[in-house]
Amino acid sequence: MPNPTAAMLVIGDEILSGRTRDANMHYLAGELTKSGIDLKEVRIVSDKAADIVAATRSLAKQFDHLFTSGGIGPTHDDITADCIAAAFDAAIDVRADAKALLEAHYKRQGLELNAARLRMARIPDGAKLIDNPVSVAPGFSLANAHVMAGVPAVFKAMVASVLPQLTGGAPLLSDTLRLERGEGDVAQPLGAVAELYPELSIGSYPFQKDGIYGTNIVLRGTDPNQLEAAKKKLQQMLIE
Amino acid sequence: MPNPTAAMLVIGDEILSGRTRDANMHYLAGELTKSGIDLKEVRIVSDKAADIVAATRSLAKQFDHLFTSGGIGPTHDDITADCIAAAFDAAIDVRADAKALLEAHYKRQGLELNAARLRMARIPDGAKLIDNPVSVAPGFSLANAHVMAGVPAVFKAMVASVLPQLTGGAPLLSDTLRLERGEGDVAQPLGAVAELYPELSIGSYPFQKDGIYGTNIVLRGTDPNQLEAAKKKLQQMLIE
Repeated sequence: MPNPTAAMLVIGDEILSGRTRDANMHYLAGELTKSGIDLKEVRIVSDKAADIVAATRSLAKQFDHLFTSGGIGPTHDDITADCIAAAFDAAIDVRADAKALLEAHYKRQGLELNAARLRMARIPDGAKLIDNPVSVAPGFSLANAHVMAGVPAVFKAMVASVLPQLTGGAPLLSDTLRLERGEGDVAQPLGAVAELYPELSIGSYPFQKDGIYGTNIVLRGTDPNQLEAAKKKLQQMLIE
Repeated sequence: MPNPTAAMLVIGDEILSGRTRDANMHYLAGELTKSGIDLKEVRIVSDKAADIVAATRSLAKQFDHLFTSGGIGPTHDDITADCIAAAFDAAIDVRADAKALLEAHYKRQGLELNAARLRMARIPDGAKLIDNPVSVAPGFSLANAHVMAGVPAVFKAMVASVLPQLTGGAPLLSDTLRLERGEGDVAQPLGAVAELYPELSIGSYPFQKDGIYGTNIVLRGTDPNQLEAAKKKLQQMLIE
């Protein structure tokens, strides 16, 4: 059975303007790979409702899972929850279970659950809350979309909450062959081995460090025997 | 008049698998902001032809400019140039101008321009080459798509080559001075010449290959007389 597929939607003007460097995409990519879910596409869009709705619809339809990051805080530009609801034609309002979490949290802190903070309890009908052990305000899963915060520490905690509940396929294995030769020198044997093992993904990544230049060949696949055989073949062609 | 809009397409399995953390998106976002071009959307897709072609068509149609990163090296998984050509229904083959650049480069290095390396001279009909002062193999602009390498140092150099041409005004000219000396050795005279010619942009790109360390100095500007004078001055200070 092929691995489940996934897409990610990152929401935030601050990333598109270059002010903030996104960290969540790289983190999620690594976690999904460990879980045997294939991340197939990432989109980064601005805080514009029409763009968020359109990207959500397109990605949720094409892939088994959609993970979103950003736009679920208390300010006026946090419109992700409403956009996800719109994308799935679901109603949305302050929901009692989410409100109870926030009430308890702010009471503990001696802070008022004001109108702005209450926005974070807006959850679409039919969604399942995603636990936020860092700052309480929950994310949610609606259909195949998992909606999480943009703050990296919160995003990580939410990924840890939601990922074990999704069915992963066979975990993706990888092996690396480090060669002190240029990409142009190894391209031909690489192509030949890629043809021999069509189920593996074989990539080459040039490096140049401390006066040494070379190429890392990364083999990826779910079958350890194939990986080993392909690596041996490459070693024969390139080293011996 | 509103700012021109842009999208970016990052191509690479290694980013979606979490093996590599993309650096080019954040860099381009900052440069576009400085140039008054609004980055509206970023997509990251895998090395799959159908996905690259579809994303290229969609983004090139929606925005004034499309910048791509990755997939233009010598190996079998470097399919970006062919995909961009397909997206714009352009023919593509090894082109004489790109081949001449590579021939000169590899001859200087005493390396063979083999079939794999020659792939990097595949340029769509009607495209304009993008200068690569770091490792020679060019990028290209076809219609409103600007196709650049994924290696961050090369991506940055290509952005510096292409961006000034997009923001209106007189066409940007460039000239390169190749020095087999480290950046630290040339920084002082470089700074002096940059001060003498404030209208030129003068960049330095270190390289390190086959045991040779050096620096490519790239001069960019709109006035050919200034360019020539500045290059002469640099030659006097650094070579003679």
